[in-house]
Amino acid sequence: MKDFYIEKKIYYHDTDCGGVVYYANYLKFIEESRSEYCLSQGVSLKEWSDKGLLFPVVHAEITYKAPARYQDTIRIFSKLEKIGNTSVNFSHEIRRGDTLLIQSQVVWVCVGKDFKPHAIPEEIRTKLSRS
Amino acid sequence: MKDFYIEKKIYYHDTDCGGVVYYANYLKFIEESRSEYCLSQGVSLKEWSDKGLLFPVVHAEITYKAPARYQDTIRIFSKLEKIGNTSVNFSHEIRRGDTLLIQSQVVWVCVGKDFKPHAIPEEIRTKLSRS
Amino acid sequence: MKDFYIEKKIYYHDTDCGGVVYYANYLKFIEESRSEYCLSQGVSLKEWSDKGLLFPVVHAEITYKAPARYQDTIRIFSKLEKIGNTSVNFSHEIRRGDTLLIQSQVVWVCVGKDFKPHAIPEEIRTKLSRS
Amino acid sequence: MKDFYIEKKIYYHDTDCGGVVYYANYLKFIEESRSEYCLSQGVSLKEWSDKGLLFPVVHAEITYKAPARYQDTIRIFSKLEKIGNTSVNFSHEIRRGDTLLIQSQVVWVCVGKDFKPHAIPEEIRTKLSRS
Repeated sequence: MKDFYIEKKIYYHDTDCGGVVYYANYLKFIEESRSEYCLSQGVSLKEWSDKGLLFPVVHAEITYKAPARYQDTIRIFSKLEKIGNTSVNFSHEIRRGDTLLIQSQVVWVCVGKDFKPHAIPEEIRTKLSRS
Repeated sequence: MKDFYIEKKIYYHDTDCGGVVYYANYLKFIEESRSEYCLSQGVSLKEWSDKGLLFPVVHAEITYKAPARYQDTIRIFSKLEKIGNTSVNFSHEIRRGDTLLIQSQVVWVCVGKDFKPHAIPEEIRTKLSRS
Repeated sequence: MKDFYIEKKIYYHDTDCGGVVYYANYLKFIEESRSEYCLSQGVSLKEWSDKGLLFPVVHAEITYKAPARYQDTIRIFSKLEKIGNTSVNFSHEIRRGDTLLIQSQVVWVCVGKDFKPHAIPEEIRTKLSRS
Repeated sequence: MKDFYIEKKIYYHDTDCGGVVYYANYLKFIEESRSEYCLSQGVSLKEWSDKGLLFPVVHAEITYKAPARYQDTIRIFSKLEKIGNTSVNFSHEIRRGDTLLIQSQVVWVCVGKDFKPHAIPEEIRTKLSRS
Protein backbone atom coordinates (compact mmCIF):
# COMPACT_ATOMS: atom_id res chain seq x y z
CA MET A 1 0.00 0.00 0.00
CA LYS A 2 1.31 3.41 -0.96
CA ASP A 3 1.94 6.07 1.65
CA PHE A 4 -0.84 8.60 1.31
CA TYR A 5 -0.68 12.06 2.85
CA ILE A 6 -2.07 15.56 2.60
CA GLU A 7 -0.26 18.73 3.59
CA LYS A 8 -1.78 21.38 5.79
CA LYS A 9 -0.72 24.63 7.35
CA ILE A 10 -1.63 25.61 10.89
CA TYR A 11 -3.59 28.81 11.51
CA TYR A 12 -4.74 30.69 14.63
CA HIS A 13 -8.07 28.84 14.71
CA ASP A 14 -6.25 25.51 15.07
CA THR A 15 -4.39 26.59 18.21
CA ASP A 16 -5.28 27.34 21.83
CA CYS A 17 -3.92 29.64 24.53
CA GLY A 18 -1.36 27.00 25.49
CA GLY A 19 0.38 28.18 22.30
CA VAL A 20 -0.03 24.91 20.36
CA VAL A 21 -2.66 23.10 18.30
CA TYR A 22 -5.69 22.18 20.43
CA TYR A 23 -5.70 18.43 21.10
CA ALA A 24 -9.09 17.74 19.49
CA ASN A 25 -8.17 19.46 16.23
CA TYR A 26 -5.80 16.71 15.12
CA LEU A 27 -8.93 14.57 14.69
CA LYS A 28 -10.14 17.12 12.13
CA PHE A 29 -6.85 16.86 10.26
CA ILE A 30 -6.96 13.05 10.10
CA GLU A 31 -10.59 13.22 8.93
CA GLU A 32 -9.44 15.38 6.02
CA SER A 33 -6.62 12.99 5.18
CA ARG A 34 -8.89 9.88 5.37
CA SER A 35 -11.46 11.58 3.19
CA GLU A 36 -8.83 12.45 0.55
CA TYR A 37 -7.33 8.96 0.79
CA CYS A 38 -10.74 7.47 -0.04
CA LEU A 39 -11.16 9.87 -2.98
CA SER A 40 -7.69 8.92 -4.25
CA GLN A 41 -8.91 5.28 -4.25
CA GLY A 42 -12.07 6.30 -6.14
CA VAL A 43 -14.42 6.28 -3.14
CA SER A 44 -16.43 9.49 -2.57
CA LEU A 45 -17.87 9.54 0.96
CA LYS A 46 -20.21 12.28 -0.20
CA GLU A 47 -21.72 10.11 -2.94
CA TRP A 48 -22.15 7.20 -0.54
CA SER A 49 -23.71 9.53 2.02
CA ASP A 50 -26.19 10.65 -0.66
CA LYS A 51 -26.99 6.94 -1.21
CA GLY A 52 -27.65 6.54 2.52
CA LEU A 53 -24.38 5.07 3.80
CA LEU A 54 -22.32 6.85 6.45
CA PHE A 55 -19.00 5.89 8.03
CA PRO A 56 -18.92 7.27 11.57
CA VAL A 57 -15.86 6.69 13.72
CA VAL A 58 -16.57 4.16 16.51
CA HIS A 59 -13.12 4.16 18.06
CA ALA A 60 -10.17 6.52 17.99
CA GLU A 61 -6.85 6.35 19.76
CA ILE A 62 -4.37 9.16 19.57
CA THR A 63 -0.86 9.57 20.95
CA TYR A 64 0.53 13.09 21.16
CA LYS A 65 4.33 13.00 20.71
CA ALA A 66 5.05 16.68 20.04
CA PRO A 67 2.87 19.73 19.42
CA ALA A 68 2.28 21.55 16.13
CA ARG A 69 2.31 25.34 16.27
CA TYR A 70 0.96 28.34 14.35
CA GLN A 71 2.32 28.44 10.78
CA ASP A 72 3.78 24.93 10.88
CA THR A 73 3.27 22.89 7.75
CA ILE A 74 2.37 19.32 8.63
CA ARG A 75 1.81 16.11 6.68
CA ILE A 76 -1.11 13.91 7.67
CA PHE A 77 -0.64 10.28 6.61
CA SER A 78 -3.45 7.77 6.19
CA LYS A 79 -3.11 4.04 5.79
CA LEU A 80 -5.85 1.45 5.45
CA GLU A 81 -5.05 -1.35 7.90
CA LYS A 82 -8.01 -3.71 7.56
CA ILE A 83 -11.49 -3.96 6.08
CA GLY A 84 -13.91 -6.17 7.98
CA ASN A 85 -17.53 -6.93 7.16
CA THR A 86 -18.91 -3.66 8.53
CA SER A 87 -15.79 -1.87 9.77
CA VAL A 88 -12.59 -0.30 8.44
CA ASN A 89 -9.36 0.24 10.38
CA PHE A 90 -7.08 3.15 9.56
CA SER A 91 -3.78 4.26 11.00
CA HIS A 92 -2.53 7.83 10.79
CA GLU A 93 0.63 9.74 11.46
CA ILE A 94 1.18 13.48 11.51
CA ARG A 95 4.70 14.73 10.85
CA ARG A 96 6.42 18.09 10.61
CA GLY A 97 9.44 17.38 8.44
CA ASP A 98 11.02 14.30 10.02
CA THR A 99 9.45 14.89 13.44
CA LEU A 100 6.61 12.56 14.38
CA LEU A 101 3.91 14.61 16.12
CA ILE A 102 0.88 12.34 16.27
CA GLN A 103 0.06 8.64 15.92
CA SER A 104 -3.55 7.58 15.66
CA GLN A 105 -5.70 4.53 14.99
CA VAL A 106 -9.29 4.99 13.91
CA VAL A 107 -12.09 2.49 13.34
CA TRP A 108 -15.03 3.25 11.10
CA VAL A 109 -18.29 1.40 10.99
CA CYS A 110 -20.55 1.42 7.95
CA VAL A 111 -24.12 2.44 8.90
CA GLY A 112 -27.36 3.37 7.21
CA LYS A 113 -29.26 6.61 7.82
CA ASP A 114 -30.70 4.93 10.96
CA PHE A 115 -27.12 4.57 12.32
CA LYS A 116 -27.52 0.75 12.32
CA PRO A 117 -24.50 -1.29 11.01
CA HIS A 118 -24.59 -2.19 7.32
CA ALA A 119 -22.35 -4.50 5.28
CA ILE A 120 -19.70 -2.56 3.40
CA PRO A 121 -20.61 -2.61 -0.31
CA GLU A 122 -18.29 -4.76 -2.43
CA GLU A 123 -17.41 -1.77 -4.60
CA ILE A 124 -16.04 0.16 -1.63
CA ARG A 125 -14.18 -2.89 -0.32
CA THR A 126 -12.49 -3.45 -3.70
CA LYS A 127 -11.56 0.17 -4.29
CA LEU A 128 -10.25 0.89 -0.79
CA SER A 129 -8.07 -2.21 -0.67
CA ARG A 130 -6.44 -2.00 -4.09
CA SER A 131 -2.85 -0.78 -4.05
CA MET B 1 -38.66 43.42 26.08
CA LYS B 2 -36.83 41.67 28.92
CA ASP B 3 -33.07 41.37 28.91
CA PHE B 4 -32.27 37.77 28.09
CA TYR B 5 -28.85 36.23 28.66
CA ILE B 6 -27.03 32.95 29.16
CA GLU B 7 -23.82 32.49 31.11
CA LYS B 8 -20.83 30.62 29.75
CA LYS B 9 -17.34 29.82 30.89
CA ILE B 10 -14.35 29.98 28.56
CA TYR B 11 -12.24 26.85 28.04
CA TYR B 12 -9.01 26.09 26.15
CA HIS B 13 -10.92 25.12 22.99
CA ASP B 14 -12.45 28.61 22.80
CA THR B 15 -9.06 30.35 22.74
CA ASP B 16 -6.17 30.67 20.28
CA CYS B 17 -2.41 31.13 20.59
CA GLY B 18 -2.89 34.91 20.85
CA GLY B 19 -4.02 34.05 24.40
CA VAL B 20 -7.65 35.15 23.97
CA VAL B 21 -10.92 33.78 22.58
CA TYR B 22 -10.68 33.19 18.81
CA TYR B 23 -12.67 35.85 16.96
CA ALA B 24 -15.04 33.44 15.19
CA ASN B 25 -16.04 31.68 18.41
CA TYR B 26 -18.12 34.58 19.68
CA LEU B 27 -20.55 33.74 16.86
CA LYS B 28 -20.97 30.31 18.46
CA PHE B 29 -21.75 31.94 21.80
CA ILE B 30 -24.40 34.24 20.34
CA GLU B 31 -25.95 31.29 18.47
CA GLU B 32 -26.35 29.53 21.83
CA SER B 33 -27.90 32.61 23.40
CA ARG B 34 -30.32 33.19 20.47
CA SER B 35 -31.34 29.55 20.55
CA GLU B 36 -32.06 29.72 24.29
CA TYR B 37 -33.86 33.03 23.88
CA CYS B 38 -36.20 31.43 21.34
CA LEU B 39 -36.81 28.47 23.66
CA SER B 40 -37.58 30.89 26.50
CA GLN B 41 -40.24 32.40 24.23
CA GLY B 42 -41.63 28.95 23.44
CA VAL B 43 -40.02 28.57 20.01
CA SER B 44 -37.96 25.41 19.49
CA LEU B 45 -35.71 25.78 16.44
CA LYS B 46 -35.26 22.01 16.48
CA GLU B 47 -38.98 21.35 16.15
CA TRP B 48 -39.29 23.87 13.32
CA SER B 49 -36.27 22.35 11.62
CA ASP B 50 -37.99 18.94 11.82
CA LYS B 51 -41.02 20.59 10.14
CA GLY B 52 -38.76 21.87 7.36
CA LEU B 53 -38.07 25.47 8.39
CA LEU B 54 -34.53 26.70 9.02
CA PHE B 55 -33.29 30.12 10.13
CA PRO B 56 -29.83 30.66 8.67
CA VAL B 57 -27.98 33.88 9.38
CA VAL B 58 -27.81 36.11 6.28
CA HIS B 59 -25.92 38.98 7.86
CA ALA B 60 -23.75 39.40 10.94
CA GLU B 61 -21.85 42.37 12.24
CA ILE B 62 -19.57 42.13 15.20
CA THR B 63 -17.53 44.71 17.09
CA TYR B 64 -14.74 43.44 19.32
CA LYS B 65 -14.28 45.81 22.28
CA ALA B 66 -12.18 43.67 24.61
CA PRO B 67 -11.11 40.03 24.58
CA ALA B 68 -12.40 37.20 26.77
CA ARG B 69 -9.80 34.82 28.18
CA TYR B 70 -9.49 31.28 29.48
CA GLN B 71 -11.68 30.71 32.56
CA ASP B 72 -13.58 33.97 32.18
CA THR B 73 -17.31 33.74 32.85
CA ILE B 74 -19.23 35.78 30.31
CA ARG B 75 -22.86 36.74 29.80
CA ILE B 76 -24.26 36.60 26.28
CA PHE B 77 -27.31 38.84 25.83
CA SER B 78 -29.91 38.46 23.08
CA LYS B 79 -32.57 40.93 22.11
CA LEU B 80 -35.14 40.67 19.34
CA GLU B 81 -35.04 43.94 17.41
CA LYS B 82 -37.50 43.37 14.58
CA ILE B 83 -39.53 40.67 12.84
CA GLY B 84 -40.14 41.22 9.14
CA ASN B 85 -42.04 39.02 6.73
CA THR B 86 -39.21 36.53 6.20
CA SER B 87 -36.44 37.91 8.42
CA VAL B 88 -35.65 38.50 12.09
CA ASN B 89 -33.17 41.04 13.50
CA PHE B 90 -31.33 40.34 16.73
CA SER B 91 -28.83 42.35 18.70
CA HIS B 92 -26.35 40.80 21.09
CA GLU B 93 -23.89 41.91 23.72
CA ILE B 94 -21.28 39.88 25.52
CA ARG B 95 -20.14 41.13 28.92
CA ARG B 96 -17.71 40.00 31.61
CA GLY B 97 -19.07 41.61 34.73
CA ASP B 98 -19.60 45.27 33.78
CA THR B 99 -17.12 45.17 30.90
CA LEU B 100 -18.60 45.15 27.41
CA LEU B 101 -16.60 42.73 25.25
CA ILE B 102 -18.69 42.26 22.12
CA GLN B 103 -21.55 43.97 20.29
CA SER B 104 -23.25 42.18 17.45
CA GLN B 105 -26.21 42.45 15.09
CA VAL B 106 -27.50 39.37 13.34
CA VAL B 107 -30.18 38.93 10.70
CA TRP B 108 -31.95 35.62 10.18
CA VAL B 109 -33.96 34.64 7.18
CA CYS B 110 -36.63 31.95 7.33
CA VAL B 111 -36.08 29.31 4.62
CA GLY B 112 -37.42 25.91 3.62
CA LYS B 113 -35.26 22.82 3.15
CA ASP B 114 -34.44 24.17 -0.34
CA PHE B 115 -32.90 27.28 1.30
CA LYS B 116 -35.51 29.49 -0.45
CA PRO B 117 -37.11 32.27 1.68
CA HIS B 118 -40.37 31.35 3.40
CA ALA B 119 -42.86 33.55 5.29
CA ILE B 120 -42.33 33.32 9.05
CA PRO B 121 -45.25 31.30 10.51
CA GLU B 122 -47.67 33.39 12.57
CA GLU B 123 -47.05 31.20 15.62
CA ILE B 124 -43.34 32.02 15.63
CA ARG B 125 -44.00 35.71 15.03
CA THR B 126 -46.41 35.87 17.96
CA LYS B 127 -44.25 33.94 20.38
CA LEU B 128 -40.96 35.68 19.57
CA SER B 129 -42.43 39.16 19.86
CA ARG B 130 -44.40 38.78 23.10
CA SER B 131 -42.75 40.37 26.12
CA MET C 1 -14.06 8.85 44.64
CA LYS C 2 -17.25 10.79 43.97
CA ASP C 3 -18.86 10.80 40.55
CA PHE C 4 -18.20 14.19 39.05
CA TYR C 5 -20.06 15.52 36.02
CA ILE C 6 -21.05 18.67 34.19
CA GLU C 7 -24.15 19.13 32.07
CA LYS C 8 -24.08 20.58 28.59
CA LYS C 9 -26.52 21.23 25.81
CA ILE C 10 -25.74 20.55 22.17
CA TYR C 11 -25.93 23.42 19.66
CA TYR C 12 -25.54 23.68 15.88
CA HIS C 13 -21.81 24.40 16.15
CA ASP C 14 -21.26 21.04 17.87
CA THR C 15 -22.79 19.05 15.02
CA ASP C 16 -21.86 18.19 11.43
CA CYS C 17 -23.78 17.49 8.23
CA GLY C 18 -24.10 13.83 9.24
CA GLY C 19 -26.75 15.21 11.64
CA VAL C 20 -24.88 14.34 14.85
CA VAL C 21 -22.11 15.78 17.04
CA TYR C 22 -18.78 15.88 15.17
CA TYR C 23 -16.47 13.16 16.51
CA ALA C 24 -13.68 15.52 17.61
CA ASN C 25 -16.00 17.74 19.64
CA TYR C 26 -16.48 15.19 22.41
CA LEU C 27 -12.83 15.86 23.29
CA LYS C 28 -13.82 19.49 23.93
CA PHE C 29 -16.62 18.36 26.23
CA ILE C 30 -14.35 16.11 28.28
CA GLU C 31 -11.77 18.92 28.53
CA GLU C 32 -14.48 21.10 30.07
CA SER C 33 -15.47 18.38 32.51
CA ARG C 34 -11.83 17.63 33.53
CA SER C 35 -11.17 21.32 34.01
CA GLU C 36 -14.24 21.68 36.26
CA TYR C 37 -13.35 18.48 38.13
CA CYS C 38 -9.94 19.94 38.96
CA LEU C 39 -11.52 23.20 40.12
CA SER C 40 -13.96 21.24 42.30
CA GLN C 41 -10.88 19.65 43.94
CA GLY C 42 -9.32 23.08 44.42
CA VAL C 43 -6.89 22.91 41.49
CA SER C 44 -7.05 25.81 39.03
CA LEU C 45 -5.31 24.88 35.77
CA LYS C 46 -5.26 28.57 34.92
CA GLU C 47 -3.30 29.48 38.05
CA TRP C 48 -0.81 26.66 37.44
CA SER C 49 -0.47 27.73 33.83
CA ASP C 50 0.35 31.25 35.05
CA LYS C 51 3.04 29.65 37.28
CA GLY C 52 4.46 27.88 34.21
CA LEU C 53 2.98 24.38 34.48
CA LEU C 54 0.79 22.96 31.73
CA PHE C 55 -1.00 19.62 31.48
CA PRO C 56 -1.22 18.63 27.82
CA VAL C 57 -2.93 15.39 26.87
CA VAL C 58 -0.38 12.79 25.69
CA HIS C 59 -2.83 9.99 25.01
CA ALA C 60 -6.56 9.80 24.41
CA GLU C 61 -8.78 6.87 23.61
CA ILE C 62 -12.41 7.30 22.78
CA THR C 63 -15.19 4.82 22.04
CA TYR C 64 -18.30 6.13 20.33
CA LYS C 65 -21.34 4.10 21.44
CA ALA C 66 -24.17 6.35 20.25
CA PRO C 67 -24.34 9.87 18.83
CA ALA C 68 -25.52 13.03 20.55
CA ARG C 69 -27.73 15.37 18.51
CA TYR C 70 -28.75 19.02 18.34
CA GLN C 71 -30.54 20.12 21.53
CA ASP C 72 -29.63 16.99 23.51
CA THR C 73 -28.60 17.60 27.08
CA ILE C 74 -25.66 15.41 28.01
CA ARG C 75 -23.70 14.70 31.19
CA ILE C 76 -19.93 14.49 30.94
CA PHE C 77 -18.38 12.47 33.77
CA SER C 78 -14.77 12.72 34.90
CA LYS C 79 -12.93 10.36 37.21
CA LEU C 80 -9.32 10.47 38.32
CA GLU C 81 -7.88 6.99 37.84
CA LYS C 82 -4.23 7.38 38.80
CA ILE C 83 -1.59 10.01 39.53
CA GLY C 84 1.96 9.06 38.60
CA ASN C 85 5.12 11.08 39.04
CA THR C 86 4.58 13.26 35.96
CA SER C 87 1.27 11.96 34.57
CA VAL C 88 -2.41 11.76 35.48
CA ASN C 89 -4.95 9.24 34.15
CA PHE C 90 -8.59 10.18 33.77
CA SER C 91 -11.60 8.23 32.59
CA HIS C 92 -14.69 9.87 31.17
CA GLU C 93 -18.20 8.91 30.21
CA ILE C 94 -20.79 10.92 28.35
CA ARG C 95 -24.42 10.02 28.91
CA ARG C 96 -27.80 11.26 27.70
CA GLY C 97 -30.17 10.17 30.44
CA ASP C 98 -29.36 6.48 30.98
CA THR C 99 -27.83 6.03 27.52
CA LEU C 100 -24.05 5.73 27.40
CA LEU C 101 -22.79 7.71 24.39
CA ILE C 102 -19.03 7.95 24.89
CA GLN C 103 -16.28 6.27 26.91
CA SER C 104 -12.86 7.82 27.02
CA GLN C 105 -9.50 7.49 28.74
CA VAL C 106 -7.12 10.41 28.77
CA VAL C 107 -3.55 10.74 30.02
CA TRP C 108 -2.07 14.07 30.99
CA VAL C 109 1.58 14.85 31.42
CA CYS C 110 2.81 17.74 33.55
CA VAL C 111 5.21 19.97 31.59
CA GLY C 112 6.93 23.31 31.95
CA LYS C 113 6.68 26.15 29.42
CA ASP C 114 9.37 24.31 27.38
CA PHE C 115 6.98 21.31 27.08
CA LYS C 116 9.52 19.12 28.97
CA PRO C 117 8.08 16.75 31.65
CA HIS C 118 8.01 18.12 35.20
CA ALA C 119 7.20 16.39 38.50
CA ILE C 120 3.60 17.04 39.56
CA PRO C 121 3.70 19.44 42.54
CA GLU C 122 2.72 17.79 45.84
CA GLU C 123 -0.11 20.30 46.30
CA ILE C 124 -1.78 19.19 43.07
CA ARG C 125 -1.25 15.52 43.86
CA THR C 126 -2.86 15.90 47.29
CA LYS C 127 -5.82 17.97 46.10
CA LEU C 128 -6.64 15.88 43.04
CA SER C 129 -6.54 12.56 44.91
CA ARG C 130 -8.59 13.52 47.98
CA SER C 131 -12.11 12.17 47.97
CA MET D 1 -3.96 45.60 -6.41
CA LYS D 2 -3.88 41.99 -7.56
CA ASP D 3 -6.69 39.62 -6.71
CA PHE D 4 -5.38 37.29 -4.05
CA TYR D 5 -7.09 34.03 -3.12
CA ILE D 6 -6.55 30.64 -1.55
CA GLU D 7 -8.46 27.49 -2.36
CA LYS D 8 -9.98 25.26 0.26
CA LYS D 9 -12.08 22.15 0.36
CA ILE D 10 -14.97 21.69 2.79
CA TYR D 11 -14.93 18.75 5.20
CA TYR D 12 -17.38 17.36 7.77
CA HIS D 13 -15.88 19.47 10.57
CA ASP D 14 -16.73 22.67 8.67
CA THR D 15 -20.44 21.84 8.46
CA ASP D 16 -23.37 21.61 10.87
CA CYS D 17 -26.56 19.57 11.07
CA GLY D 18 -28.33 22.11 8.83
CA GLY D 19 -26.30 20.41 6.07
CA VAL D 20 -24.13 23.43 5.22
CA VAL D 21 -20.99 25.18 6.50
CA TYR D 22 -21.53 26.58 10.01
CA TYR D 23 -21.83 30.37 9.84
CA ALA D 24 -18.88 31.12 12.13
CA ASN D 25 -16.47 28.95 10.15
CA TYR D 26 -16.27 31.35 7.21
CA LEU D 27 -14.37 33.66 9.58
CA LYS D 28 -11.75 30.91 9.91
CA PHE D 29 -11.47 30.69 6.13
CA ILE D 30 -10.98 34.43 5.70
CA GLU D 31 -8.37 34.42 8.49
CA GLU D 32 -6.42 31.82 6.50
CA SER D 33 -6.69 33.87 3.32
CA ARG D 34 -5.64 37.13 5.05
CA SER D 35 -2.71 35.39 6.66
CA GLU D 36 -1.54 33.99 3.30
CA TYR D 37 -2.12 37.36 1.63
CA CYS D 38 0.20 38.99 4.16
CA LEU D 39 2.83 36.29 3.60
CA SER D 40 2.55 36.80 -0.16
CA GLN D 41 3.37 40.48 0.48
CA GLY D 42 6.34 39.50 2.65
CA VAL D 43 4.66 40.08 6.03
CA SER D 44 4.77 37.15 8.46
CA LEU D 45 2.21 37.63 11.23
CA LYS D 46 4.04 34.96 13.20
CA GLU D 47 7.32 36.87 13.14
CA TRP D 48 5.59 40.10 14.19
CA SER D 49 3.77 38.25 16.93
CA ASP D 50 7.16 36.99 18.18
CA LYS D 51 8.30 40.64 18.21
CA GLY D 52 5.25 41.56 20.31
CA LEU D 53 2.80 42.93 17.74
CA LEU D 54 -0.60 41.34 17.21
CA PHE D 55 -3.38 42.20 14.76
CA PRO D 56 -6.71 41.29 16.35
CA VAL D 57 -9.91 41.88 14.43
CA VAL D 58 -11.90 44.77 15.94
CA HIS D 59 -14.79 44.71 13.48
CA ALA D 60 -16.18 42.14 11.08
CA GLU D 61 -19.19 42.26 8.82
CA ILE D 62 -20.31 39.26 6.85
CA THR D 63 -23.10 38.75 4.33
CA TYR D 64 -24.16 35.17 3.60
CA LYS D 65 -25.37 34.91 -0.02
CA ALA D 66 -25.37 31.14 -0.48
CA PRO D 67 -24.12 28.21 1.59
CA ALA D 68 -21.06 26.05 0.96
CA ARG D 69 -21.47 22.32 1.47
CA TYR D 70 -19.41 19.22 2.24
CA GLN D 71 -16.79 18.58 -0.47
CA ASP D 72 -17.23 21.93 -2.17
CA THR D 73 -14.03 23.61 -3.27
CA ILE D 74 -14.16 27.31 -2.54
CA ARG D 75 -11.93 30.29 -3.25
CA ILE D 76 -11.38 32.82 -0.47
CA PHE D 77 -10.34 36.23 -1.78
CA SER D 78 -8.56 38.90 0.24
CA LYS D 79 -8.06 42.50 -0.68
CA LEU D 80 -6.36 45.25 1.31
CA GLU D 81 -8.69 48.26 1.28
CA LYS D 82 -6.92 50.78 3.50
CA ILE D 83 -4.07 51.12 5.98
CA GLY D 84 -4.56 53.73 8.67
CA ASN D 85 -2.21 54.66 11.49
CA THR D 86 -3.10 51.72 13.71
CA SER D 87 -5.70 49.85 11.65
CA VAL D 88 -6.02 47.89 8.41
CA ASN D 89 -9.19 47.34 6.39
CA PHE D 90 -9.67 44.16 4.35
CA SER D 91 -12.46 42.99 2.13
CA HIS D 92 -13.10 39.33 1.35
CA GLU D 93 -15.21 37.28 -0.98
CA ILE D 94 -15.78 33.55 -0.99
CA ARG D 95 -16.79 31.95 -4.26
CA ARG D 96 -17.59 28.45 -5.52
CA GLY D 97 -16.88 28.67 -9.21
CA ASP D 98 -18.75 31.78 -10.34
CA THR D 99 -21.18 31.74 -7.43
CA LEU D 100 -20.63 34.37 -4.77
CA LEU D 101 -21.20 32.78 -1.35
CA ILE D 102 -19.84 35.30 1.14
CA GLN D 103 -18.89 38.97 1.28
CA SER D 104 -17.01 40.27 4.28
CA GLN D 105 -15.24 43.36 5.58
CA VAL D 106 -12.76 43.06 8.39
CA VAL D 107 -10.85 45.69 10.36
CA TRP D 108 -7.62 44.87 12.16
CA VAL D 109 -6.00 46.96 14.82
CA CYS D 110 -2.28 46.74 15.57
CA VAL D 111 -1.68 46.14 19.29
CA GLY D 112 1.17 45.26 21.62
CA LYS D 113 1.17 42.29 23.99
CA ASP D 114 -0.91 44.45 26.40
CA PHE D 115 -3.64 44.69 23.71
CA LYS D 116 -3.17 48.51 23.58
CA PRO D 117 -3.12 50.12 20.08
CA HIS D 118 0.32 50.56 18.50
CA ALA D 119 1.36 52.42 15.33
CA ILE D 120 1.75 50.04 12.41
CA PRO D 121 5.50 49.72 11.66
CA GLU D 122 6.57 51.40 8.41
CA GLU D 123 7.92 48.08 7.09
CA ILE D 124 4.49 46.45 7.34
CA ARG D 125 2.75 49.47 5.83
CA THR D 126 5.11 49.47 2.84
CA LYS D 127 4.96 45.74 2.21
CA LEU D 128 1.19 45.38 2.58
CA SER D 129 0.38 48.28 0.28
CA ARG D 130 2.75 47.52 -2.60
CA SER D 131 1.07 46.04 -5.63
